[in-house]
Amino acid sequence: MTMPSQTPYLPITSAQLIEDAVGCWEAGAAVVHIHMRKPETGEPCGDVDLWGKVLGDIKERCDVVVCTSTGGGPGMSVAQRAAVVSAYRPELASFNLGSMNFGMFAAIPSIKEWKYAWEKPYLENTKDFVFKNTFADLDLMCRTMKEYGTKPELEVYDVGHLYSAAYMIRQGWLEFPIHIQFVMGVLGGIGTDIRDLIHLLDTAQRLFEKNFTWSVIGIGYPAEFALGTTAALLGGNVRVGLEDNIKIKKGELAKGNRELALKMAGILKGLDFELASPAQARKYLGLKGLDNVNY
Amino acid sequence: MTMPSQTPYLPITSAQLIEDAVGCWEAGAAVVHIHMRKPETGEPCGDVDLWGKVLGDIKERCDVVVCTSTGGGPGMSVAQRAAVVSAYRPELASFNLGSMNFGMFAAIPSIKEWKYAWEKPYLENTKDFVFKNTFADLDLMCRTMKEYGTKPELEVYDVGHLYSAAYMIRQGWLEFPIHIQFVMGVLGGIGTDIRDLIHLLDTAQRLFEKNFTWSVIGIGYPAEFALGTTAALLGGNVRVGLEDNIKIKKGELAKGNRELALKMAGILKGLDFELASPAQARKYLGLKGLDNVNY
Amino acid sequence: MTMPSQTPYLPITSAQLIEDAVGCWEAGAAVVHIHMRKPETGEPCGDVDLWGKVLGDIKERCDVVVCTSTGGGPGMSVAQRAAVVSAYRPELASFNLGSMNFGMFAAIPSIKEWKYAWEKPYLENTKDFVFKNTFADLDLMCRTMKEYGTKPELEVYDVGHLYSAAYMIRQGWLEFPIHIQFVMGVLGGIGTDIRDLIHLLDTAQRLFEKNFTWSVIGIGYPAEFALGTTAALLGGNVRVGLEDNIKIKKGELAKGNRELALKMAGILKGLDFELASPAQARKYLGLKGLDNVNY
Amino acid sequence: MTMPSQTPYLPITSAQLIEDAVGCWEAGAAVVHIHMRKPETGEPCGDVDLWGKVLGDIKERCDVVVCTSTGGGPGMSVAQRAAVVSAYRPELASFNLGSMNFGMFAAIPSIKEWKYAWEKPYLENTKDFVFKNTFADLDLMCRTMKEYGTKPELEVYDVGHLYSAAYMIRQGWLEFPIHIQFVMGVLGGIGTDIRDLIHLLDTAQRLFEKNFTWSVIGIGYPAEFALGTTAALLGGNVRVGLEDNIKIKKGELAKGNRELALKMAGILKGLDFELASPAQARKYLGLKGLDNVNY
Repeated sequence: MTMPSQTPYLPITSAQLIEDAVGCWEAGAAVVHIHMRKPETGEPCGDVDLWGKVLGDIKERCDVVVCTSTGGGPGMSVAQRAAVVSAYRPELASFNLGSMNFGMFAAIPSIKEWKYAWEKPYLENTKDFVFKNTFADLDLMCRTMKEYGTKPELEVYDVGHLYSAAYMIRQGWLEFPIHIQFVMGVLGGIGTDIRDLIHLLDTAQRLFEKNFTWSVIGIGYPAEFALGTTAALLGGNVRVGLEDNIKIKKGELAKGNRELALKMAGILKGLDFELASPAQARKYLGLKGLDNVNY
Repeated sequence: MTMPSQTPYLPITSAQLIEDAVGCWEAGAAVVHIHMRKPETGEPCGDVDLWGKVLGDIKERCDVVVCTSTGGGPGMSVAQRAAVVSAYRPELASFNLGSMNFGMFAAIPSIKEWKYAWEKPYLENTKDFVFKNTFADLDLMCRTMKEYGTKPELEVYDVGHLYSAAYMIRQGWLEFPIHIQFVMGVLGGIGTDIRDLIHLLDTAQRLFEKNFTWSVIGIGYPAEFALGTTAALLGGNVRVGLEDNIKIKKGELAKGNRELALKMAGILKGLDFELASPAQARKYLGLKGLDNVNY
Repeated sequence: MTMPSQTPYLPITSAQLIEDAVGCWEAGAAVVHIHMRKPETGEPCGDVDLWGKVLGDIKERCDVVVCTSTGGGPGMSVAQRAAVVSAYRPELASFNLGSMNFGMFAAIPSIKEWKYAWEKPYLENTKDFVFKNTFADLDLMCRTMKEYGTKPELEVYDVGHLYSAAYMIRQGWLEFPIHIQFVMGVLGGIGTDIRDLIHLLDTAQRLFEKNFTWSVIGIGYPAEFALGTTAALLGGNVRVGLEDNIKIKKGELAKGNRELALKMAGILKGLDFELASPAQARKYLGLKGLDNVNY
Repeated sequence: MTMPSQTPYLPITSAQLIEDAVGCWEAGAAVVHIHMRKPETGEPCGDVDLWGKVLGDIKERCDVVVCTSTGGGPGMSVAQRAAVVSAYRPELASFNLGSMNFGMFAAIPSIKEWKYAWEKPYLENTKDFVFKNTFADLDLMCRTMKEYGTKPELEVYDVGHLYSAAYMIRQGWLEFPIHIQFVMGVLGGIGTDIRDLIHLLDTAQRLFEKNFTWSVIGIGYPAEFALGTTAALLGGNVRVGLEDNIKIKKGELAKGNRELALKMAGILKGLDFELASPAQARKYLGLKGLDNVNY
C-alpha cells in the first residue's frame, strides 16, 4: 500500500488506473490487481461507482484478467470491502486469510515531504491497527465469492494462513483447486528470504498436494524482482506493481506499473519463460471468463 | 487455553494453581507458566489479588521460576493484561508479538457437555475475535517490562512474529539476548510440523544469530511431546501443560500438569538430557532472581 | 563398522551373533541387520558357511526379520559381497547406492590399545579406500536381488544416492515400493544434523512420492538415538546397533545390541509409539516371508 | 564433461580454448575454468605443454583469472591431475572433495552420431567407474596447492563433501576462508532442485559460518541458468560453460562459451547485479595475482 507522497507515478484517478492496467497488459501481464482510491487525494476507498468506471473501461480496451482488491483500508468493514464483488461479480478477487498487524508506519521516516494531509496520520494509525480478517469474516467472504462466481486469490502473509486455509477446506468453506498469492515482506507478516518462500511453498504442497496454483509478491526492492524470479524458477507465478514496490532499480523510481511489468517480463524472458496470455491465465486459474462478470 | 469442560483436572482455584505449580517443580520443571482464572467458574481473568496470593504461596513453597501470562482473554485491554507485571514485577512474563486470529471455536464440536455457562459463548466468540497485539501494544508492553525488570518471553505464533521482533530490536524496544517461545498449533498461527519448527528456528538464527534462547509449545496431543522432544534435540527447551494439551496419551486425559511434566521429563531423561534446576534456568535466561520480585 | 578394540561387547562369533539377534528380538526389534566376521579375529568377511549357521539358528529361535549385509569390507568384490543373497535368498539385504569415501581412519586416535593385528592397518587403509558401488555394481546387485526374491534395503549415505535410485527406477532396475535406510554420519557421507534428515526425507518424497518406506541410522552417540527418535516423529523407522554406535550414554559402553535396542524401545514407548512385530514389519516392507528363504 | 559429438562448438584446440576464454572475459566473466583436451580428438588430458601454451596466451591477452581443472579423466592418477598446479602455480585450481560415481554413460542414448572413436567407450566406461578422490588424495592435493600458492576451488557434488571439508579444516589440511563450488546435477551426486542448493548453502553456513565464498554450477539446461540465477539471489556466484551445459535455450545449441556467458550476464544485469572485474574477483577470493603464477 503505497502513499502518493512516495512516488508521483502511482495511478490514482480512474483514467490513470485504466491507463496503467492497459499498459501492463501490453507489457505482457495476464492479470492486473487493482486497489481503488479517491481521485482527489489518493486515499484508499471502496467506492462502487469508481470501480464500475474502471472495470468497464479496462474491459473495453483489453482482455486482461482483473483481480479486484478486497483488502480495503483502516475503518472499512468487511462488507464494504466485499461490495465490489457483489456489485460486479469479477473473475478474481483478493481474499485475505487472517488478522495481523500491518505496520506501514515504519515507512514514515523515509518520507520527507507529504503531498496530502491524510497520509501521515493514516500511516501513523497503522501502529495501533489490526488488519482484521476473523474467521467469521473469512466465512462471510467465502460465501460472497461463491455466490457471485468470483475465484478467491488467497493472500498468504504467513505460514499460519496456509493452515487456516486448510481448516476452511476441511470445513467446506473453500474448494479445490485454490489459488494462493504469497505476500512477503509486510511488517507483521513473513519476510522476504528465499527460504521463507520455499517453506511457504513446501507447506502448501504438504497441505494441499497438487490442488493449488500460486504466485508471489515481494514487498520492496529488490525483493519484488528477486522473489518473482525465484517463484518462476520454482514453477509459480509473479506479481509486480507500485503498490508493492516503487523502485525500478536501486535509488530510482519506476515510472509506472508498466515499467515494472516490462522489467519483470524481461527477466523472465531472459530465463526462457513464456508469458501467459489472459486466455491461458483464465484456463490455468479456472476463471469463469469476461462474459460472466457484471460490468 | 483450555476450558473446564474439556478436563476436570484443569487447575482453577488458587489452591489448585499453587498445588500444580509445586507439583511440576517436584517433577523437574524449572519454570512454570500461569494463567489466572476466576475461582468460581474458571473464566480467564487478570485479577491482581488472585495473582498476589498464587505468586506468594508458590514462592513460599519452592524456588521455581514463575512466568506470568499477559495474554489475558477477550475483552481485556493490554493495560489490564500487563497489570500483573507492574504489581508484582515477576522475573518472566509472556509477551505476545502480534495480532492474529485465535480460533478456539474449532474445539466446540468435541465438547459434549458444558460445565459453566460462559464457556460455549466464549469459544464461539473466538470466531469473530482478534487476539490484538498491535505495534503500539508491543511498544507499551516493552516499556512496562523494562520498567519492572521483567524479562519478556516472546511468544512466536508464526514466522512474521520473528520479523516483528527483529524490527523491535532495530528500534531499541527490545534488547539482546531475547528469549523466544515458539507456540505451534493455534488455529490462526503456524502448525505443528517439525519442518515448521526448523524454519522458525533457522529464521531466528538468521535474524538474531546467537543472541537468543528458545523453547517450544506444541498445542494438542501428540504435538506437545513430539515438538518438545524435537526442541530438546535441536538444543532448545520445552514447555508442557494443560493449557496446551489435555491428554497424557491417545484417548486418556492427563490427571494434572504434574503428570504431563513427569512424562516429558521421562522422555528427556531417556534421551540423556539433564533437567535444569530453577537456579540454572535463571542463569540461562538472565533473570533477576526471586529477591527482586515484588511478591 | 566397529572394531573389536573399540568395545568388548561387539558380537563376533556365530554364537554371539545369534545371541545378540535373539536378544534384540526380545527387546522389541522386528528386524536385525547382521555383519559377518571371522570368529577368531572379528575381521569382516563374507564366509557363506558362517552365514548359514547364523541364519539357520536365528530362524530356529525366533521369527525376527534378518537383513543380511552386502557391504562387505575392503578387498571384497561385489560378487563376494552378494554371495549371501544367492546362497540363502534372505528376505531383506542391504544395498549400497553409490561409491564414496568411508573414512574409518578418523577413529584411530580414539583407540588406545589394539586387540588384533588386522585392526589398525584396516582402519589406516580406509584413508586411501573407496567404498566402490559403481552403477555396473548396482545393476548387478539389482538383478541378483530380483532373481532371489530379496528386497533391497537401499542404503542412502547422501542426497545423491536418492537421485541415483531415481535413475535406477526410471531404468527399471528397481521397482516401487522401495525401502530406504538413511545412513547418517559416515566420514565421506552426509552428517547427523536433523536438517540433513529432513532434506533427505523431503527429497525422497519429491522423487518417489508415497512409494517408499524408510528408516534411519545415526552413526555415533548421541546421533543414534537423536536421529532414531526424530525419524519416528517424522513417520519413519529406526535402526540402532553396535556397528553404528558403541555407547549407551556419554562415556559408557553399551553391553550389547540388546541394551541399545531396549534403550531405543524405551524412548519410543515414552512417546507412545508401538513397536512393530516381525509379522507387521514383513507386511509393511512387503517381504516374502521366512517360508521362502533358503536357510 | 561434454563430448565433441554432443556439440561442434566445444573448444578443443589451444587456439579454441584461448579464443573462448578471452571471449568469456569480454562477455564479463571474471574467472574461466579450463579443461585440457588432446587437440586431435578432444579427449581429456593433462598434457603440461598444452597447459603452458594456453595459460601463457590467455595471460597475454587479458587479465581473467584462470582456474585450472584437476579433475582429469578416467585412468589419470591424482599426481597427473595435479601436474598443472606444480608446473604453473596457477591462482586457482579445482579440488574435488570426495570419491563418487560419475555416470556420464546416461548421455549415450541422446548421441546419435559419434565423431571420435574414443567417445562411446569413454562414456560406457563411466558405468563401472569411480571418480576417485580418497582422503589420501585430498591430503596430497592440499599439500600441493599449499606449496604452490594455488587457492583450491572446492568442488562439492553432495552434502557429505561439505562435512569432509569440515574434517579437513579441523585437521589443518585446509584453511579459512575457503571457496566452494557447488556442482549440481551429476548422476551420482546431488540434483538440481533449488532446495538442494539451499540445503548445501545452509549446511556450509552451519559448518563454516562466514568463512567461505561460494559459487554454483548447474549441469544441463535449464539448470545452469536457473541455479546460477538463484545463486546470485542468495548472495553467491555463478559458473556457466559448455562443459556443464551445451544449450542456449530449449532445443538450441550454444555457439560457444561466450554465448553462455553473455546470456547469464544478461540475466544478472536484468536483476541489477554488477559483474565483478577480474581484479575484484581476485580480492574477493583472496588470490595471489597474475604476478605470482609460473606462466
